Amino acid sequence: MERVYIADAAEHVDQNVTIKGWVHNKTHKGKLLFIMLRDGTGMIQAVVFKGNFDEDYFDELIRLAQESAILVTGKIVQDKRSKGGFELQADEVTIHHEAQEYPITPKEHGIEFLMDHRHLWLRSTKQNALLKVRHKVIKASRDFLDNNGFTLVDAPIFTPSACEGTTNLFETEYFDAQAYLTQSGQLYMEAGAMAFGKVYCFGPTFRAEKSKTRRHLTEFWMVEPEMAYCDLQEDMIWAEKMVEYVAQYVLNTCEKELTLLERDLSKLETIKAPFPRITYDQAAEILKKANSDFVYGDDFGAPDETILSQEFEKPLMVTHYPADVKAFYMKRDPDNPERALCVDVLAPEGYGEIIGGGQREDNLDELLKRIKEHELPEEAFQWYTDLRRYGSVPHSGFGMGIERTVTWLTGTHHVREAIPFPRTMTRLYP
Amino acid sequence: MERVYIADAAEHVDQNVTIKGWVHNKTHKGKLLFIMLRDGTGMIQAVVFKGNFDEDYFDELIRLAQESAILVTGKIVQDKRSKGGFELQADEVTIHHEAQEYPITPKEHGIEFLMDHRHLWLRSTKQNALLKVRHKVIKASRDFLDNNGFTLVDAPIFTPSACEGTTNLFETEYFDAQAYLTQSGQLYMEAGAMAFGKVYCFGPTFRAEKSKTRRHLTEFWMVEPEMAYCDLQEDMIWAEKMVEYVAQYVLNTCEKELTLLERDLSKLETIKAPFPRITYDQAAEILKKANSDFVYGDDFGAPDETILSQEFEKPLMVTHYPADVKAFYMKRDPDNPERALCVDVLAPEGYGEIIGGGQREDNLDELLKRIKEHELPEEAFQWYTDLRRYGSVPHSGFGMGIERTVTWLTGTHHVREAIPFPRTMTRLYP
Repeated sequence: MERVYIADAAEHVDQNVTIKGWVHNKTHKGKLLFIMLRDGTGMIQAVVFKGNFDEDYFDELIRLAQESAILVTGKIVQDKRSKGGFELQADEVTIHHEAQEYPITPKEHGIEFLMDHRHLWLRSTKQNALLKVRHKVIKASRDFLDNNGFTLVDAPIFTPSACEGTTNLFETEYFDAQAYLTQSGQLYMEAGAMAFGKVYCFGPTFRAEKSKTRRHLTEFWMVEPEMAYCDLQEDMIWAEKMVEYVAQYVLNTCEKELTLLERDLSKLETIKAPFPRITYDQAAEILKKANSDFVYGDDFGAPDETILSQEFEKPLMVTHYPADVKAFYMKRDPDNPERALCVDVLAPEGYGEIIGGGQREDNLDELLKRIKEHELPEEAFQWYTDLRRYGSVPHSGFGMGIERTVTWLTGTHHVREAIPFPRTMTRLYP
Repeated sequence: MERVYIADAAEHVDQNVTIKGWVHNKTHKGKLLFIMLRDGTGMIQAVVFKGNFDEDYFDELIRLAQESAILVTGKIVQDKRSKGGFELQADEVTIHHEAQEYPITPKEHGIEFLMDHRHLWLRSTKQNALLKVRHKVIKASRDFLDNNGFTLVDAPIFTPSACEGTTNLFETEYFDAQAYLTQSGQLYMEAGAMAFGKVYCFGPTFRAEKSKTRRHLTEFWMVEPEMAYCDLQEDMIWAEKMVEYVAQYVLNTCEKELTLLERDLSKLETIKAPFPRITYDQAAEILKKANSDFVYGDDFGAPDETILSQEFEKPLMVTHYPADVKAFYMKRDPDNPERALCVDVLAPEGYGEIIGGGQREDNLDELLKRIKEHELPEEAFQWYTDLRRYGSVPHSGFGMGIERTVTWLTGTHHVREAIPFPRTMTRLYP
């Protein structure tokens, strides 16, 4: 019998097929047993009629534990009352593996228990839907860049030096040397932009931050585009176009998942460029009016970002932060050297920062001065400063955090559910 | 004036445009200066006529160092004699940044020198072409899986335990614990397959091998699909279909790059499924006839793989290795428990292994026995063995090494040129 996936049921109506899956749950009414069957691509109700089976075997099916592996052969019929619109009229049910008592039951479980069982929790409908959206967010980001002439240039994970300062780095012995795990591929993307014009990297990045907030992971994925001959203004246009593309792609391809996650779709429909732009000073004014305890001159904290991003329906682009709170490679605003030519994009509804970016310092002397000021090892940055010796051009880029973007688009509270196997300060298992 | 990219020159014939790029090289004949301009998307010859410029400025242009950043405004005209088929008749040339003397000249350089300058070497035509093919290999792999119903499930980089034994692991302090950098996402993909049916991960993996061969990097990228309800035979069909798709995609989209790299395109045209299949025993026969010093019962070494892969025009699938030389999670052949239900795919022309895969042990007791035999910490594998407690099904998968695949498809000798910033035992910079 032809094996089909539940997601393809519509193409096999009134056909006899085999579906290979697992028992998600079941109910039993007299001579009928209804098995909600899942195969990873969807769910279908299998209707098992006692009359078609040996009595003992029917009883065995009734007792099957959740997540037992079964093969069901039968006819797919259209049924509007059924979840998904189809039903499988079972002629044969083969028990492939009887599960032990499944630890994740319909009752409430604490988050630590669920995370200890992440390898099983992924089978739950909500987690399944969340990670399917994650896949689409990643695909959309790559497609957007590929379709716009960007070249993928993977940044290294092992680096000889720190990109954004030496704190919060994971370190490893590297034969006779020490290596650090990358915090960002940006510096390498600058080299890439000079070679390919427009580039991006897409990979895991690492920060050993002792943060237990709902926005922090020690291991998270970033997409980082970088463009040669590009200033802050053009950088911001790329950023808003990419966010628009990703949001609309998810809206168009994940309606089922977003509905299951009870996401308000109208909030995503409004995510169209252009996005509002305000300066750091204007943002500070908003915070003052909202009675935040924000101190002018500091970077915004998570609560400040929440306030700011609740003020707008679209992602908010905040520019011109004080140079002191930003990384050494940021170009200063020629009209006001105290300010950096940078942009943070804050997702609406209080989700906060999803993108950080800006124009990079392209003047060799200025850059060397910053490296000295930040007490960074000049020798380790020799290659990076070379980019200002051989055909230096204005260039800009940004990094978009995947987990934060997924969290926002799916309306999820905590980034830890937006990655298959989250790593936090207190979690390294499974 | 509209800025255009060189790759789009054909769409702007007889139009006045600005191209922003770098001086790749130049020649000077009397009143004419020919600048080969590169912008990362391609090359175009800019023709600069002395009569159109101030004499001193023309002299300055003649003296411009390689890789200086310039903006050239002028008319794009069709010219069959020119590289790329177009020429730019310069009306204006703006020097944006005069480069210092460029270290990479047309003369021969040693590999260590070039690798020390990898951040600049990427600008060279050959390296540029190689990495553009890499981008397409990655895109094709993802597209193939996305189009065939696979869900992307990113595997974690930090792991609490070793997947393929405890040697060759990079280790890092993880707050109060120790973490290891992943050698393979496979075990996590097995959990993913039970949740989503068909999954893949795509990310960097790490091996602290003290190997200085042309096939080894300490940091390399792998794509790892895993399928539930899938045996070795179906696994092999997925593997050959994916390799065919990637090879044909590269052939169709990278003809310019492959030609520049002097790749024999006819060798890639033959890469169509099905691929030849032989067992380990049959492979041993071939090696014996070739007078290899291969010892029956051992794993194949790189020279053995070279001999085997030279025997066939297509990738070669070798199955049923002795279980003893394969990882603990491999399912044994029920007809001969000394053999594993595994497959290695060896690329032709002597390139050797690009894929390793097989069917996984799905029986709980067997798996627990193997974990004990391999002296692996049972507790760290609790989650992994859980997959055999709750709806265990036959499942299989494989991992394809990106750098080895790029090396083969481009006809390159060493994997270190198939990744933007290679990491080897002796290289961590730039």
